[in-house]
Amino acid sequence: MHASRPRHPDPASCLTAAVERVGAPVCVGLDPVAERLPAPIRSAAGDDPVRGIEAFSRAVIEAVAPAVPCVKVQSACFERYGAAGFAVMARLIAEARALGLIVILDAKRGDIGLSTAHYAAAAVSLGAHWVTVSPYLGDEGIRPFVDAGLGAFALVRTSNPSGDAIQALPLADGRTVAEAVADEVERLAMATRGDRSGGFGAVGAVVGATRPEDAARLRARMPHAIFLVPGYGAQGAGGAEIRACFLRGITGAVVTASRSVLYAAPEAPDVRAAIHQAATALADEVTQALAVAG
Amino acid sequence: MHASRPRHPDPASCLTAAVERVGAPVCVGLDPVAERLPAPIRSAAGDDPVRGIEAFSRAVIEAVAPAVPCVKVQSACFERYGAAGFAVMARLIAEARALGLIVILDAKRGDIGLSTAHYAAAAVSLGAHWVTVSPYLGDEGIRPFVDAGLGAFALVRTSNPSGDAIQALPLADGRTVAEAVADEVERLAMATRGDRSGGFGAVGAVVGATRPEDAARLRARMPHAIFLVPGYGAQGAGGAEIRACFLRGITGAVVTASRSVLYAAPEAPDVRAAIHQAATALADEVTQALAVAG
Repeated sequence: MHASRPRHPDPASCLTAAVERVGAPVCVGLDPVAERLPAPIRSAAGDDPVRGIEAFSRAVIEAVAPAVPCVKVQSACFERYGAAGFAVMARLIAEARALGLIVILDAKRGDIGLSTAHYAAAAVSLGAHWVTVSPYLGDEGIRPFVDAGLGAFALVRTSNPSGDAIQALPLADGRTVAEAVADEVERLAMATRGDRSGGFGAVGAVVGATRPEDAARLRARMPHAIFLVPGYGAQGAGGAEIRACFLRGITGAVVTASRSVLYAAPEAPDVRAAIHQAATALADEVTQALAVAG
Repeated sequence: MHASRPRHPDPASCLTAAVERVGAPVCVGLDPVAERLPAPIRSAAGDDPVRGIEAFSRAVIEAVAPAVPCVKVQSACFERYGAAGFAVMARLIAEARALGLIVILDAKRGDIGLSTAHYAAAAVSLGAHWVTVSPYLGDEGIRPFVDAGLGAFALVRTSNPSGDAIQALPLADGRTVAEAVADEVERLAMATRGDRSGGFGAVGAVVGATRPEDAARLRARMPHAIFLVPGYGAQGAGGAEIRACFLRGITGAVVTASRSVLYAAPEAPDVRAAIHQAATALADEVTQALAVAG
C-alpha cells in the first residue's frame, strides 16, 4: 500500500500529452453517491453502498477511458466509507491508470510540514498524478506535493456562493484575495516548469467556470499554470466561461464535468454505453466551444 | 463503519466541560511517524510501520487520558498508510472516546456541497467530536460539519512562515485576510452557540501561538469562538503567546502540543510513564502560565 510508485517528474507534460493524444481538454469527475447509483448496479451489489460505488465507478472508468484524457476522483465520496472506501478508491485509481487515464485526486488537502508530506505520500501510494490543494497555508502547503512528483492544483477561485466571502475581498494593493493567491500560484508554476511541459508548471489553479470575466483576469495572471475548471454542465457554466480559461486552442486548461456524465441516463438499458456517449458529447462540446473561439 | 454514532448537539459545551473536569485546557497531538517510534515498540511490531504506529498511539492515548481532556488526531499520519492506516485511526479514536477523551480530527478538510457532507459523515463515523477545516471556500465548507453534529475549528492564523503570504495581506478596509476570516468565524460561532456552552459556538478558530499581538487582536474579534492553539513547546511558543489566546482563566482556548509529549523520553525504560509525565507537565505549565495572567 505504501510502497512508492513510478513517479512523473513532469506532471504538466504528462497531462498536456494526454490531452493532445485524445484531442479534448476534458476530465470526468468521479464522485459517486450511493443514492444515485443505477438500479441494476445497486441491486447487483446487494444494496451494499461500497460495493455498489465500486462497481459503478469501475463502469464509469471503463466507459470514459476511450473518450477523455483524465478523471478526477473525489476523495470524500470514498473516505465517507472509511477504510473500505479508501481501499476501493485505491483499486479504482489503479484501474484508471492501467487504462491510460491521468488521475487527479480531488482531496483539497491543506496542511504543513510533515503532515503535508504524509498527504503527498498517500496520494503517490494511491497512484494519483495530480492532486487538488488548499492555498491558505502558503507554499508550504503546496510544495511537498510537487517534491513527491505530483502536480498540484491550488484552489484559486471557486464558484460556490460563499467563496466570495474570502476570495473576492479587495486588498489594499487593488488585487482581490483570489488574485493574490493566483500570483502565488504563478510564482510556483514558473518555478516548477518541466523541460517538455509547454511552459506549464507542476502547480496549477482550480478556477470555477461560472464567471468569465474573473476567469479571463486570472488567466492573464497565471500564464504558466494549467487551470482545472469545474462547474461545466450541471453547475451551469457554458462556452464563454470555458473559453476564458484557455490560453490557445485546447491548451491551458482542463474542463471537468461529473453529474452530466455519470447520471446521463440512469434508466438506460446499457448504462455504460450511455456514460460513454455522454463523455464523448462532453469532449465534443468543449472542443467545439474552443474552436469557435480560435 | 458508516453507521451514525451518537452525536453531540453542542460540541462547545462538550469540550469546555471536559476542560473543566480535568482543570487544564490542553490537548495532546497524536501525529506519530514510523521513524520516531521508540525502539521497543518498533521491534515488537516486527518493523511494520502501521502496527508500530497503532501500538505507540494506543500507549500514548492510555498514558495521557488521565492528564488531559482531549487529543488531536493528525489524519495525514494515518492516511499515509491507506486503508490500513484509516482502519487504525478509527480504532484509536474509538479507544480515546472510551477513555473519556474529546477527539479533534485534524484533517483540515475544505470542500463544498455533497463532498463536505461526505467528509463530515466520515468524521462522525470515525467518532470525532471536532474537526479542523479550511476557510477558503467560505461557510459552505464549514457548516456541513456543524450540521452533522461536529464542532469545526477553522484555520484562521497559522504560524508557519509561508502562511503570511495569504493570511497577513492587508485588505482595503484595514483588516488582514486572517482578520476577515476571523469575522466569518465569529459570525458562525455566534450562530451555533449551544444552551450550555458558556457562550461558545460550534465553530472555533485555529490560531497559531507564535505571535502574541496577533493572537490578542484575533481573540478580541472572536469572543464566541474557542481557539485551538498549536505550536506550544516544540514549535517555540511560550506563556505570553498562550495567554493572549484565552478569555479568562482556563476558558476560551485549548493549547495543543505533540512532539514534546510523544517523544519526551524515547529511550526511557517505561515509555508510557514518560509520556504520562510529559502530559502532566504540559497541563501544569499551561495552567500556571494562565494563573500568572489571572
